[in-house]
Amino acid sequence: MADQNRRFILAERPAGSVEESTMRLERGPVPEPGPGQALAQVRFLSIDPAIRVWLDDLPSDLPPIAIGEVIRGLGVAEIVRSDCDGYEPGDLTLGLTGWQDYVLVDKGEHSMLRTLAPGLAPETALGVLGVNGMTAYFGMLDVGRVTEGDVVVVSGAAGATGSIAGQIARVKGAAKVIGVAGGPEKCTWLVEELGFTAAIDYKADDVSSRLAELAPAGIDLFFDNVGGEILDACLANLSERARVVLCGAISVYNSRATAGGPANYMMLIFRNARMEGFEITNYFDRFEAAQAELGAWLESGAIDSAEQIVDGLERAPGALNLLFTGGNTGKLVVRT
Amino acid sequence: MADQNRRFILAERPAGSVEESTMRLERGPVPEPGPGQALAQVRFLSIDPAIRVWLDDLPSDLPPIAIGEVIRGLGVAEIVRSDCDGYEPGDLTLGLTGWQDYVLVDKGEHSMLRTLAPGLAPETALGVLGVNGMTAYFGMLDVGRVTEGDVVVVSGAAGATGSIAGQIARVKGAAKVIGVAGGPEKCTWLVEELGFTAAIDYKADDVSSRLAELAPAGIDLFFDNVGGEILDACLANLSERARVVLCGAISVYNSRATAGGPANYMMLIFRNARMEGFEITNYFDRFEAAQAELGAWLESGAIDSAEQIVDGLERAPGALNLLFTGGNTGKLVVRT
Repeated sequence: MADQNRRFILAERPAGSVEESTMRLERGPVPEPGPGQALAQVRFLSIDPAIRVWLDDLPSDLPPIAIGEVIRGLGVAEIVRSDCDGYEPGDLTLGLTGWQDYVLVDKGEHSMLRTLAPGLAPETALGVLGVNGMTAYFGMLDVGRVTEGDVVVVSGAAGATGSIAGQIARVKGAAKVIGVAGGPEKCTWLVEELGFTAAIDYKADDVSSRLAELAPAGIDLFFDNVGGEILDACLANLSERARVVLCGAISVYNSRATAGGPANYMMLIFRNARMEGFEITNYFDRFEAAQAELGAWLESGAIDSAEQIVDGLERAPGALNLLFTGGNTGKLVVRT
Repeated sequence: MADQNRRFILAERPAGSVEESTMRLERGPVPEPGPGQALAQVRFLSIDPAIRVWLDDLPSDLPPIAIGEVIRGLGVAEIVRSDCDGYEPGDLTLGLTGWQDYVLVDKGEHSMLRTLAPGLAPETALGVLGVNGMTAYFGMLDVGRVTEGDVVVVSGAAGATGSIAGQIARVKGAAKVIGVAGGPEKCTWLVEELGFTAAIDYKADDVSSRLAELAPAGIDLFFDNVGGEILDACLANLSERARVVLCGAISVYNSRATAGGPANYMMLIFRNARMEGFEITNYFDRFEAAQAELGAWLESGAIDSAEQIVDGLERAPGALNLLFTGGNTGKLVVRT
């Protein structure tokens, strides 16, 4: 156990990408657990687009991170000391640890950290069986109501959520699963490793005309992680009664205050189509069943997952930027 | 019966509002009905925002009106000669007559004109018991699923569809029905005559801050006829699981090729909300039941309707522009 606690503090709100001046690494004493508390050491941080959203002083699902606060984020932490029933030293737990080495927890009603099933790898718990897998699962099945024969498009398809979402559509009998991703390596991976029908490289291709070729009868279900021009291209190519699942808008998060919206949203009228957002927190009570089904697909090889690990807490801000430059494939985590 | 047929032809696509050069009034002979055909004389034209949409060479619900074609639009026409079973001289019929004095019809499978119930006024058949009433009814009930206690906002609230939509919400037990309209006269009319809870004058008020005051717990259902800044203001003020019914986007139709989209669409994610478009043509088989219910509300005084009649076929292009300048209250028709 280290003798100090490093914590990333929000120093100033970024105008675009996270810069050197956005966050400050502070060092302080390791916190002392009080009666009924446990001390957890953060081992893995989940690097998610939502963190960038919380850096802005704009409305979102949670209040903005305040200046001077620890950067909010999910992580896996190991219990290192405990005066709390239900936490034993060595237990791995998952929750909103924040970007720091140590966090105090208790087992109160609002306990932040839940204990992981034995043997579950942290990157899996954070990724395919965690928020990303749950988001893909409920977004594709509940919000998007994927149906056998659907023509499905997923943007951010090589990302942690998109890669699972597309595979779930395939498992559920979609007629076509078309991924939109950046660069030939990701596109090849989607088709050859994950079984997507086709992939569109948005950095090289005209997305709208490729969609028109690949989905001549229109897109039945679009699972959007990206927003911006890709959302507009998909809106222009919807089928009748199409569903657009709004999972995220990563192309916009670095410029939310000035970004425009999807000019083609009117196609929702002309195609009798629906665009719906969702927060995965609404599905907590169904996580267990979803994890069981996803876990079985993983075990049988029906779906596959990828993780990318960046070593060192101090590299977390740079890792966050990778999400916005296309620098990651699959689930991105920082090993502290 | 006149001895010539006047027809408005699309001469060139407008860059914004309809101009003198957009349409050309042509005069020709009255068409001769062939065997099995009837000749109908157009008496009323329905002036609808969709007509402006069809003037652009952009995707919509129907193909664009071609250069040289008669302006497409709904109307009420009287049968003046008939060699067709089912049409008798004197019958009033409704359908896509186009902007002209005379139209030939038959009773084929794709017959354009259906006979009106006796005694039904043309402006009512085109408005509150026609496309506008049907759009308000199915948009509010089926797409928006208005529920007792909902906080409802309607934009374009003094228009033909919006004025009915808001009243349907009131009849169905909405806790609040807030209209957005242009100018104090319309706002007073909405509250004092139609029973809206409140009205926001978008020409004078800050819509977003007025919405925050009037709907502090958020908007449960937004019925949008307008798009643009009003849509963004409503998106910024949605409640959890809100529904946005996309009926139209009249603020955008004069500039679709260059207009942006709703920058606040991301609030759909953060509020678990849904935005859905619809075309009323999907509900044809339920029109009769809807007309019966709306008719009963009209008769009991539960809802009220307003019509504005412009006299003269030659004034139809100017009447269309009235929709975009806020120059109409209720259903706008041209009496040829």
